[in-house]
Amino acid sequence: MSRPGVFITLEGIEGAGKTTQVGRILEFMESQGYECISTREPGGTGIGAKIRAILLNSEHVTLAPLAELLLYEADRAQHLARLIKPALEAGKCVVCDRFCDATTAYQGYARELSLDFINELHARILDGLTPDLTLLFDLPAEIGLSRAKTRLHEQNNTSQEGRFEAEDLAFHRKVRQGYLTLAKAEPGRFAIVNADAAPDRVWEETKELLAEFTAKRNLA
Amino acid sequence: MSRPGVFITLEGIEGAGKTTQVGRILEFMESQGYECISTREPGGTGIGAKIRAILLNSEHVTLAPLAELLLYEADRAQHLARLIKPALEAGKCVVCDRFCDATTAYQGYARELSLDFINELHARILDGLTPDLTLLFDLPAEIGLSRAKTRLHEQNNTSQEGRFEAEDLAFHRKVRQGYLTLAKAEPGRFAIVNADAAPDRVWEETKELLAEFTAKRNLA
Repeated sequence: MSRPGVFITLEGIEGAGKTTQVGRILEFMESQGYECISTREPGGTGIGAKIRAILLNSEHVTLAPLAELLLYEADRAQHLARLIKPALEAGKCVVCDRFCDATTAYQGYARELSLDFINELHARILDGLTPDLTLLFDLPAEIGLSRAKTRLHEQNNTSQEGRFEAEDLAFHRKVRQGYLTLAKAEPGRFAIVNADAAPDRVWEETKELLAEFTAKRNLA
Repeated sequence: MSRPGVFITLEGIEGAGKTTQVGRILEFMESQGYECISTREPGGTGIGAKIRAILLNSEHVTLAPLAELLLYEADRAQHLARLIKPALEAGKCVVCDRFCDATTAYQGYARELSLDFINELHARILDGLTPDLTLLFDLPAEIGLSRAKTRLHEQNNTSQEGRFEAEDLAFHRKVRQGYLTLAKAEPGRFAIVNADAAPDRVWEETKELLAEFTAKRNLA
């Protein structure tokens, strides 16, 4: 696939503060001359929003792990076909809050579904596309989970989203370890940000990593 | 998996009259001493009904083929985990209106997605389970499609379901050929019913096939 665009994904456990950084990431990339769009998974398309409502609804306690996995992949296939690939082909910078690594960490490492199957699904769905940069916002699971629960409480959770926040600490620790394993396996794509800090400090580190990334791209 | 139950699936193109036969099939199997449940795909579970609403909505013209495939498989994984497997393990007869063969025929043979990928997905999701009997209600695509369109029109289509009825005749011909190819490959599991006849005639043929099937099971 010919694509002059840039694909940046943001990853991390609940409460890692990824979403807080999106605006500044976009602003920085725009300052570097990129036309940007921000999106997220699940739910980056109109049909995806309906899939997201199924996936994150905390009332859906009977959702089977394999069905959950396949819903994420369905959302991703739609997102790639209708939003991500066209934007990259048009030369845009796509900043995506969660992508494949989230599925590998949550459904693979934490839910313990077959990593082989998840990798096969990603090979079929991505068809050669990979993020150019994945920023992993890393922090201890207990801190992230506590932040995420406070946020849900403050929002009164009117969206009914909260199925993952309801998982226990052991689950979120497995997600974090899964992410760190993925980052170790692909050091060229991943950059780890220490997310156990105030948002401004997290942004400083993120900005340095983005500056390094764009400098390298400009040289290439 | 130990399962004393019986798993019967009904397949065929739109307008083949499968759904019309369900009641009599259940009645027949009950007369043979089986406790029966009838179900369908997509939408055999509470969460599946939400997936069905995404899949069949005729307004969803942007649904990508791969996303469509994965939504069907997500629905199936949920259906198997929460309804079909527990019912079979409890010794019941499960009569399911559409199952894996529908995906292979529609998304594989007609949409031309990879048959290898579809087979891999089914191997993972079914995990060794296959229908004991698949009744294929076969008729020329032009007759089925014309029946299906009349039905949608009579219902005023308040359900918004009609995404497949909107496909052209060439598509439905490929679905039919796909089903016939599958039936030829597994003659022990498939039984073909001539569905180009009045419902009572179709039922006579179906009843004979069911009687043959249950007689064989009783001998085994």
